Amino acid sequence: MSSVRDLLKQKNRDVITIDCGATVLDGAVKMNKERIGGLVVMQGDKIIGIFTERDLMNRVIAAGRNPAEMLLCDAMTTKIACCGPDTTIEECRTVMTEHRVRHLPVVEGDKLVGILSIGDLMALELEAKEQTIKYLHDYMTGPN
Amino acid sequence: MSSVRDLLKQKNRDVITIDCGATVLDGAVKMNKERIGGLVVMQGDKIIGIFTERDLMNRVIAAGRNPAEMLLCDAMTTKIACCGPDTTIEECRTVMTEHRVRHLPVVEGDKLVGILSIGDLMALELEAKEQTIKYLHDYMTGPN
Repeated sequence: MSSVRDLLKQKNRDVITIDCGATVLDGAVKMNKERIGGLVVMQGDKIIGIFTERDLMNRVIAAGRNPAEMLLCDAMTTKIACCGPDTTIEECRTVMTEHRVRHLPVVEGDKLVGILSIGDLMALELEAKEQTIKYLHDYMTGPN
Repeated sequence: MSSVRDLLKQKNRDVITIDCGATVLDGAVKMNKERIGGLVVMQGDKIIGIFTERDLMNRVIAAGRNPAEMLLCDAMTTKIACCGPDTTIEECRTVMTEHRVRHLPVVEGDKLVGILSIGDLMALELEAKEQTIKYLHDYMTGPN
């Protein structure tokens, strides 16, 4: 069964973070530029929350707040679930579904080493299914 | 294999729509209240798009637009993937992953009969796994 470590290797991209002193607007611009739906919010080296597009919608826009004036640390989610590099993909999926979150920061010791999104898990599963189909096809027809 | 029809029965909730003349702010307030991440945008009886929290972030906030003044029809996604009641859950998952969308309106004839989210699919899968585990457990220990 594949682990978070394998998946992070495949993703091969840096985890995108933002300082807690940034505004909500800074966060939205960064997520748009990076084409992601969540940012890990840091205070120095310490993870203090996650800010997602859901937080933006519920805690800022629907609440009538101004994204250019509100700080990320006042809009982020502070109760977050994390995983480690050796957590299985299956465990990650269960945690995401039960906690209803789309992002899991990956922490090794005290260090943030990556982030997994629900999209990463879906893509991995699709790839696995395609490989199975290819295998079955090869088995029935021969590889050439 | 379960179909969209079965899943909609389980969900047992109305599909949440909004008129295309509403503002982005109206949409965000409605999604917040309903605890959802996307709305089907209607012009009369016709589906003309989907508006999601991703659209809100990218096309409105990160673009510096005012949610109270921008119309939903100027921010929504018009190129949408749909499914029917007899589409399999597997096909829905594949479509969502390949098109990178989180919502699939369910259409029967010309009529909108539901909407599936990626969260619905994840929850269904978790439930199926739990049933399998329960079955295996009963098989090994007896149902009592």
